Amino acid sequence: MGLITLTTDFGTGDWFIGAMKGVMISVSGRNRIVDITHDIPPGNILAGAFALAQSYKYYPPKTIHVAIVDPGVGSDRPAIAVETRNFIFIGPDNGVLSLALAKEEIEGIYRIENEALFCKPVSRTFHGRDIFAPVAAHLGREASIQDVGPTIQNHVRLPFPSVQIQGDLLIGEVIHIDRFGNCITNLPADSVESAAAPRQVVLYDGSICSVGKFYDEVASGAPLALVGSTDCLEIAVNGGRAADQLGMKVGSPVSLKVH
Amino acid sequence: MGLITLTTDFGTGDWFIGAMKGVMISVSGRNRIVDITHDIPPGNILAGAFALAQSYKYYPPKTIHVAIVDPGVGSDRPAIAVETRNFIFIGPDNGVLSLALAKEEIEGIYRIENEALFCKPVSRTFHGRDIFAPVAAHLGREASIQDVGPTIQNHVRLPFPSVQIQGDLLIGEVIHIDRFGNCITNLPADSVESAAAPRQVVLYDGSICSVGKFYDEVASGAPLALVGSTDCLEIAVNGGRAADQLGMKVGSPVSLKVH
Amino acid sequence: MGLITLTTDFGTGDWFIGAMKGVMISVSGRNRIVDITHDIPPGNILAGAFALAQSYKYYPPKTIHVAIVDPGVGSDRPAIAVETRNFIFIGPDNGVLSLALAKEEIEGIYRIENEALFCKPVSRTFHGRDIFAPVAAHLGREASIQDVGPTIQNHVRLPFPSVQIQGDLLIGEVIHIDRFGNCITNLPADSVESAAAPRQVVLYDGSICSVGKFYDEVASGAPLALVGSTDCLEIAVNGGRAADQLGMKVGSPVSLKVH
Repeated sequence: MGLITLTTDFGTGDWFIGAMKGVMISVSGRNRIVDITHDIPPGNILAGAFALAQSYKYYPPKTIHVAIVDPGVGSDRPAIAVETRNFIFIGPDNGVLSLALAKEEIEGIYRIENEALFCKPVSRTFHGRDIFAPVAAHLGREASIQDVGPTIQNHVRLPFPSVQIQGDLLIGEVIHIDRFGNCITNLPADSVESAAAPRQVVLYDGSICSVGKFYDEVASGAPLALVGSTDCLEIAVNGGRAADQLGMKVGSPVSLKVH
Repeated sequence: MGLITLTTDFGTGDWFIGAMKGVMISVSGRNRIVDITHDIPPGNILAGAFALAQSYKYYPPKTIHVAIVDPGVGSDRPAIAVETRNFIFIGPDNGVLSLALAKEEIEGIYRIENEALFCKPVSRTFHGRDIFAPVAAHLGREASIQDVGPTIQNHVRLPFPSVQIQGDLLIGEVIHIDRFGNCITNLPADSVESAAAPRQVVLYDGSICSVGKFYDEVASGAPLALVGSTDCLEIAVNGGRAADQLGMKVGSPVSLKVH
Repeated sequence: MGLITLTTDFGTGDWFIGAMKGVMISVSGRNRIVDITHDIPPGNILAGAFALAQSYKYYPPKTIHVAIVDPGVGSDRPAIAVETRNFIFIGPDNGVLSLALAKEEIEGIYRIENEALFCKPVSRTFHGRDIFAPVAAHLGREASIQDVGPTIQNHVRLPFPSVQIQGDLLIGEVIHIDRFGNCITNLPADSVESAAAPRQVVLYDGSICSVGKFYDEVASGAPLALVGSTDCLEIAVNGGRAADQLGMKVGSPVSLKVH
């Protein structure tokens, strides 16, 4: 029995995911299919890559992770399957897999070309249903990754916002705002260890908030920075929505005062 | 093990689907339950029928498809189970099954009346939980379709917007707007073959767009018509939301120039 | 094989539920995991407690119900596992389990402390992934509830709005508005039996509506009160959204005229 996860921007309001699951189950009724999320903002490859990178490692070895945010569907962008030491990743080769792959030891990259594994006729606009779903299901059943197509050497890497050093500031930015309005930055958790006492961050508008450990240690409605569940520094408001209250969005700069 | 799909307008914000699944699993823990969508707009029978018609056929033979958009729940509208050559369909007899049934070879229509298969007490307002869920689960387990109730001769057919011919125009309309803002029409894919060269569609406001094959073949932000994944002509905008950008909604006329 | 349900306010737009399921499946691939809902309004403990209380009982005996609405995550609020005659309930001890527990016969309350069952390192902000998910999965696999930690005597009970009697009125209030705009009150179904003829409710603004049995028995667009699927009196509008049309929200008073 294979274990297959799905991370897409297809939403749950249409029948898209339902059709994909039908295709997968028709290939094999023995695979287990788990949704990571289908609510990646339409076409936002970085958001899809980040969601995958935050979740894939919690799955057991040999899990097949499918991630589809694919504004170039139907053009000639390749579809790839990537084998790492622990997992298989499947998706369009546009970077949506790359943040997860950056943490893994890659053993092989394959261009998906074997039409015998596809659901035919292959539409121009829904490779999730016609290519990615059946290929994943076949890999979960008995196909080996070499069956999907020829080996290739590279995959597309997404430019991930990098942290800058400027004077005594480590300058990062917000890369995701979660359901609770928490602003997750690209400042790594371990940078907090090197922060100057008292540990503080400077937000985009020059306001300051202190670095803490959990929401409740500041007053209700007060902001704090903390290492959340992502190995990144986040900005939160106890009992509130940091993004709304502090006026922050994806891309807003957040700096950590270091020595 | 039975395979049961669910297409409803119950949403996922309340406990409705959770209660239905509990009822189904209590009947038998061996059925597999798959969500097509629960986000059909409340009470929109046509939208539910269309989602079911677009997804059911990707499932393996013997799948039990449950579709519930049921504004008349509690009144005397019948509940039906329909056996076709490949599938069983279950739902209120208000047309929600009819677009799928129109593509299938019907072998029997049964009025669901056997209270021994219900979850009691049967509420007046939630037949999804009290009637449809347990009946589907029993059929997935070991009940035969004759057990649900007496045979009937007919089921309600939904009036589906038909395509009109006027001069050299094939006149259709938008029947669904998907998550990406693509406007799916009732113009069948094969009508494109009969289109006059250069292939073009006329939108509701007289504007013209050409018929293409995939999003990327027009400039970013430009509209095109193409046969998507539904066997229908859709209107899309490369990298954009056609519905918003072109001001189209369900019911907007779209015409194809034919010979 | 264990059966585990999830009721949370984590939403489905981030990777939170995907990460939790990965942790659970890594503990054991044989548990079945069912979503009740993840769209409890962020931090709304009462709404989470109500959704759980409305759905848990439809599951078979021995089901493990996990409910997480946890604004105090990271502080010293305990995490508990509660064994009742039929089920196990797991969550933060902040009342989110209490409406369900009030209907059950409690056999033991345990404070979750056994770090051997956790997913490490345990973050400060995501006990859903690091504590509740793996503990539930271990209980579904082979751990016994005594393994999670020491017995305690009490759990936090949520104050649930109580019904008041004033003259010939039974005064309740709206406690939930569902997807269809129906307003579910805390007036129990059996209070309707004691209502004075003609059975009527008085809404917050003094307007009156009659008590009926199903939506269709009043004109389209007309309001009625009825016993829905929750054992509580609801206010609905046939073919419409009662909350919007009547201007009602959670907390709005609704009274039943009794003898």
